[in-house]
Amino acid sequence: MPRSIAEIPTPALVVDYDVMMCNIAAMSAVLPGARLRPHVKAHKCTQIARRQQDAGHRGFTCATIREVEGMAAAGLGEDLLLANEILDARRIGAVLASGARVTVAVDSLQTIDAAIGGGVREVVIDVNVGLRRCGCAPADAASLAEHARGRGLRVRGVMGYEGHLMMTMPDDRKRKAVEESMRALLDVHQNVGGELVTGGGTGTYLANRWVTEIQAGSYVLMDSQYGELDTPFAQAFWVLGTVISSNDSWQVADAGLKAMSLDHGNPAINGADVSFVSDEHITLVAGGHAPMVGDRIRITPSHVDPTIALHERMYVVRDDEVIDEWPVDLRGW
Amino acid sequence: MPRSIAEIPTPALVVDYDVMMCNIAAMSAVLPGARLRPHVKAHKCTQIARRQQDAGHRGFTCATIREVEGMAAAGLGEDLLLANEILDARRIGAVLASGARVTVAVDSLQTIDAAIGGGVREVVIDVNVGLRRCGCAPADAASLAEHARGRGLRVRGVMGYEGHLMMTMPDDRKRKAVEESMRALLDVHQNVGGELVTGGGTGTYLANRWVTEIQAGSYVLMDSQYGELDTPFAQAFWVLGTVISSNDSWQVADAGLKAMSLDHGNPAINGADVSFVSDEHITLVAGGHAPMVGDRIRITPSHVDPTIALHERMYVVRDDEVIDEWPVDLRGW
Repeated sequence: MPRSIAEIPTPALVVDYDVMMCNIAAMSAVLPGARLRPHVKAHKCTQIARRQQDAGHRGFTCATIREVEGMAAAGLGEDLLLANEILDARRIGAVLASGARVTVAVDSLQTIDAAIGGGVREVVIDVNVGLRRCGCAPADAASLAEHARGRGLRVRGVMGYEGHLMMTMPDDRKRKAVEESMRALLDVHQNVGGELVTGGGTGTYLANRWVTEIQAGSYVLMDSQYGELDTPFAQAFWVLGTVISSNDSWQVADAGLKAMSLDHGNPAINGADVSFVSDEHITLVAGGHAPMVGDRIRITPSHVDPTIALHERMYVVRDDEVIDEWPVDLRGW
Repeated sequence: MPRSIAEIPTPALVVDYDVMMCNIAAMSAVLPGARLRPHVKAHKCTQIARRQQDAGHRGFTCATIREVEGMAAAGLGEDLLLANEILDARRIGAVLASGARVTVAVDSLQTIDAAIGGGVREVVIDVNVGLRRCGCAPADAASLAEHARGRGLRVRGVMGYEGHLMMTMPDDRKRKAVEESMRALLDVHQNVGGELVTGGGTGTYLANRWVTEIQAGSYVLMDSQYGELDTPFAQAFWVLGTVISSNDSWQVADAGLKAMSLDHGNPAINGADVSFVSDEHITLVAGGHAPMVGDRIRITPSHVDPTIALHERMYVVRDDEVIDEWPVDLRGW
């Protein structure tokens, strides 16, 4: 393991341990215990999930079967929610056989049948609350729940993800939009029943007072887009690059779009403008003192989830010291 | 290994073997043998590189140290060019010790020193030919070459990547722009010497008649952006997704931006419009017959290189049959 940031081979992920722990604590203060079901898709790292568990959160949200498998294998499978539709649930059946508890989102007869076919025992009804993605129409939720129960499944409640309301807007407007979105979910819940009303994320963790649990994940590490919101969470990870080329007009570091996702726009670098990012390079124009060839730079990606998924490991740092190296062990599908 | 496309767990990469082999043959017909130094960064797969070698190309281009290591380990290290600047060349020294031949791009005194420090013996002088990225100013190339030779390195020639000229423009304009860009490189080459003038890519493989070898890579698998060019190369790979949710207005498949890169824009789906892509989902609106829950869909990414890098493996298919499974074994750094 490298001892200091200067020894880390680049490009690489670096995580500031203390900032990350502060983020976990800040969220737990607002949403303690079961009020938060941390989403592991943002960090894909069981070492981080373990620290969220240590903070009192015992249930987790997953986006992929691989995440479910990895969490269960790491002993974090007390109450996993696969918040996504699947059509082949046989691997979930195998996870259940290992002793973990897994609840799967369903939004159609086909996904209910697939759950049963794979040996799933518990589901939530995924309801569309305004995002053009998965989830049944609110009017169909009760009959799906009835069908699921009729086929022997336990229906634990409803899920609705207001992903279209995550980003920046005036507080009162966001609260109103979230309330409207969630009102549909609560109406449906009356007919579906079950103990869970699950939804939300880092962008609505305060505004959404309607669900029983919030599925936030990005708050742990953050990114430049979530950084635009007014939250107590601070940037806790960067892509580390080395300046490999420099001239009077621009500098180039060895961290490109294979090391960070651009789907939410270019990343940010303190004291520099990012000109463009290509496969293995980022071209920047420094405002003041230009970094020199060999210098290390920290790059703040615009979107945490897909950036983490590009890396095999993250280096955990305190100031310039590397204190641990964690595998990004929930990658893939 | 799954036997048919229907059995492949999604999301996944699928490669049409026959189309890929046609692309390799079509390029070899125009640029036989050493006229092409295939760039492995586009496919990151030694199984594909081996087929390029079978077609007569014995030298390869790499973008990362990991690619160099993987190619050498696979017995494809006869003449590898690391077309990128590095500041720690020790791992290259280890590859050289294994018997492979590796030439490294340098564009500064620091990168020359790093090459020597790592045990590198051969370099090319990387010259900026108009792309705002690496490469020394043309005026500095000769003195860098002299410095390198004075320190015992063999200078094999010059490199200049006209990456800013890859995309679509009228043929005569592209030819003229490439000629201007390469004229600077050829002028420099007169003073630097060496047998190599290396550059180019899939977007200029015909227009660039000035280099001794073209570094094309994307032509093997292609993407929707290169597909806009008038070339003989056909789309040879897709991201395979399964429709997991559907309603009267849109459908959702389980292949999102963790399975394909969006840096060149949204992907394309035959017969459908792509509404948006999120971490694990693609929302589409079908023009005619809407795909049903459970249907498989083929998605054409806009940018091949970073999409391949997201996957552990590719399934090689002929029609609906899976004929092989290849690891994407050059991933990472």
